[in-house]
Amino acid sequence: MLKPNVQLLLTGNELMTGDIVDSNSAMIAQQFKELGLDISRKVTIADNLSALVNEINLLAKQADILIINGGLGPTIDDLTAHALAKATQVELIEHSEALAHLTTWCKKRGAKLNAPNLKQAILPQGCTIIANSQGSAVGFKVTHLACDIYCTPGVPRELKTMLAEQIVPDIAKKLPKKLITDVTRLQVFGLGESTLQKMINEQLPDWPENIELGFRAGMPLLEVKLTTTCQEGHNSKPQWYTKLVNVLGDHLIAEIDHQPLSLAKHILVKLADNNVKITTAESCTGGMIASLLTKEAGASACFEAGFVTYSNNMKTTLLDVSKESLEQHGAVSKEVVLAMAQGALEKSSADFVIAVSGIAGPDGGSTEKPVGTVWLAWGHKNNLKMVGLLIPLPRSHFQKYVANIGLDLIRRELMSSTQTAHYIIECKFS
Amino acid sequence: MLKPNVQLLLTGNELMTGDIVDSNSAMIAQQFKELGLDISRKVTIADNLSALVNEINLLAKQADILIINGGLGPTIDDLTAHALAKATQVELIEHSEALAHLTTWCKKRGAKLNAPNLKQAILPQGCTIIANSQGSAVGFKVTHLACDIYCTPGVPRELKTMLAEQIVPDIAKKLPKKLITDVTRLQVFGLGESTLQKMINEQLPDWPENIELGFRAGMPLLEVKLTTTCQEGHNSKPQWYTKLVNVLGDHLIAEIDHQPLSLAKHILVKLADNNVKITTAESCTGGMIASLLTKEAGASACFEAGFVTYSNNMKTTLLDVSKESLEQHGAVSKEVVLAMAQGALEKSSADFVIAVSGIAGPDGGSTEKPVGTVWLAWGHKNNLKMVGLLIPLPRSHFQKYVANIGLDLIRRELMSSTQTAHYIIECKFS
Repeated sequence: MLKPNVQLLLTGNELMTGDIVDSNSAMIAQQFKELGLDISRKVTIADNLSALVNEINLLAKQADILIINGGLGPTIDDLTAHALAKATQVELIEHSEALAHLTTWCKKRGAKLNAPNLKQAILPQGCTIIANSQGSAVGFKVTHLACDIYCTPGVPRELKTMLAEQIVPDIAKKLPKKLITDVTRLQVFGLGESTLQKMINEQLPDWPENIELGFRAGMPLLEVKLTTTCQEGHNSKPQWYTKLVNVLGDHLIAEIDHQPLSLAKHILVKLADNNVKITTAESCTGGMIASLLTKEAGASACFEAGFVTYSNNMKTTLLDVSKESLEQHGAVSKEVVLAMAQGALEKSSADFVIAVSGIAGPDGGSTEKPVGTVWLAWGHKNNLKMVGLLIPLPRSHFQKYVANIGLDLIRRELMSSTQTAHYIIECKFS
Repeated sequence: MLKPNVQLLLTGNELMTGDIVDSNSAMIAQQFKELGLDISRKVTIADNLSALVNEINLLAKQADILIINGGLGPTIDDLTAHALAKATQVELIEHSEALAHLTTWCKKRGAKLNAPNLKQAILPQGCTIIANSQGSAVGFKVTHLACDIYCTPGVPRELKTMLAEQIVPDIAKKLPKKLITDVTRLQVFGLGESTLQKMINEQLPDWPENIELGFRAGMPLLEVKLTTTCQEGHNSKPQWYTKLVNVLGDHLIAEIDHQPLSLAKHILVKLADNNVKITTAESCTGGMIASLLTKEAGASACFEAGFVTYSNNMKTTLLDVSKESLEQHGAVSKEVVLAMAQGALEKSSADFVIAVSGIAGPDGGSTEKPVGTVWLAWGHKNNLKMVGLLIPLPRSHFQKYVANIGLDLIRRELMSSTQTAHYIIECKFS
């Protein structure tokens, strides 16, 4: 097969009405990019049977590979299977493999297999089932007008896994090997995209063109991607990789495969290795740090308790922060955050602690302590450190970034880093 | 003019590679919706002249109105004017009106009119200029194969203003007035898409075709949308709305505008109205309920403290859960979750409480208490209730769903609901 023509058909009324913004096609494009393939054309239409049939025929004539996204759900506006059967002129039948999947899926969840669910097993005769490890709707593949048509679910998490586990490997098998690109992904915390780009421009001005540098800003982590598609790029990559790693310093968390690792996971692994425990004392992050830690399976090995002390009164009652200190320095201060950390260590018998107190906004700021001001205390019980930062982000981003700064400070502590994090270099207090 | 067929052509390499997510088409759809018009089809292609010409011809044959977005900029990959001239077989000429706009634009900004800028005045002969009050590139309109083609800029701010000020009014002039659509959105918790579809099929089998029913599954909330586009649908809608609301029961959280409200926000408003406070005692949700509450601005009025007691030991130390009870009944039990709730109320002096203890997995399950087992205690300090559920979802979904069940139970308590929630009807314990 030469480089195939790949097209995309997205279905869904909600995509047409503007009720949701399509992020699936970007995800599809990114996964195909790793195969060295571009999407040449993308068509989006509403949930209408005759329009769908018509479009499938038009696209199948032009494309070698067609990805159809959406319309696999249990409701009456989910029409993909019906449209495919009509376009390819076959019957819709109950697929035993799909039915088995649905039965297992419902059984696992203690739910009954109802009629709308059953609809998801009614698929075009002769199609090949594509497993869905994340949801009830299986995908399926048919070949029509010499075009391989992959029908995929609209739920992003299901789509992402089905692409990575099933569809991309299936297509990769048919491609000549040299089309496959070589991709390396690095996870970075505490550097923005433009800051990092500037650092690279300054410190590595002769970065080679044949190693493509890509950024994907996620909150809280930034993903840096190095892609090569030719032999020369491939040869010089190790050397440039090392240079880039030096520029990133301790902002580099890890090199990753597809699935990013959370900061919490990194810390928990390290804590478990050392057989030590961590506790949290949170005001402005309101339980988010504890929640980030306990999202990870196995957190119980290193985390026994966390304290959400949102009011001043509760900082005193639960963590023994003195009323005098609260009155004299205010809840958002070096003294109070240190006392919170000490109180949490005392009450929980943990070895490490993250304590946070700040002004998430939109109200509560003053000239002296504007919205975005935050104090953190962190570290081992014998060596607590404090820092004051100004993070002028909207409330939800502020909480998320601050919670992850707390985790990152512990990560650096656990690796005995002597470097100063960028979010501290840039801060206004300390 | 009858209801016209409106289609959309988006151009840009960055849209195809997945480097940016398209939000312009949602904006276009929303503005057209106010005219009562849907976008029937949307095609996205890269910046390639012959592909563009081909696509314009295909689309103009099908559509009455075609909006082309992107490709009006000053760089060489901006090809819209060139493609339109080719498709309509006219010359590209310098348009005096466009030139005047560019000259004024540059003058106002003290900039010189350079060659790349000048390119933006070179447009198909005979086209009608569409003013751009926000940027240097004017839009333009041509009629081709009986289709009105509007060429618009890719910069969202420029597009938005051009649509609102120029294009929507231009199209509105040609439309009969009664096409305007009527949309109602309902927020629902605790019912899945297929369950609700089944309930509607059973309880409202003669749901009318002219009231379109749409679902948007979000975690944790489901959005149900009723859309009418004709007079009969409009007339009968109030009656069917009432019937649907009856089917939804207390699963209905609220009717909303565009922006959904969180369950936490609903509760906080109600708690503040009654001048009462809430606390949390979390094991398996690990701080997520506290975090959901404190994500909302103004949470401090009703939330002072939360307890994350992840280990048995900490349930005893921090919440006075008796060791005997933990040994006898296990941490995931009616007795322990009740004791957690009582302890949290005692320590925080709050009026309401949510306490949760469960097995989030993937490990820690047994035959008696499999992964997904969870006990909740909730309510006012004088009237605590308990329930045991089996929620067999993957860890991250389990935590999110259970945290929101906790919030929903409080919501029902605050509205004095006497109905049983669906997640309780379906449960295995109680």
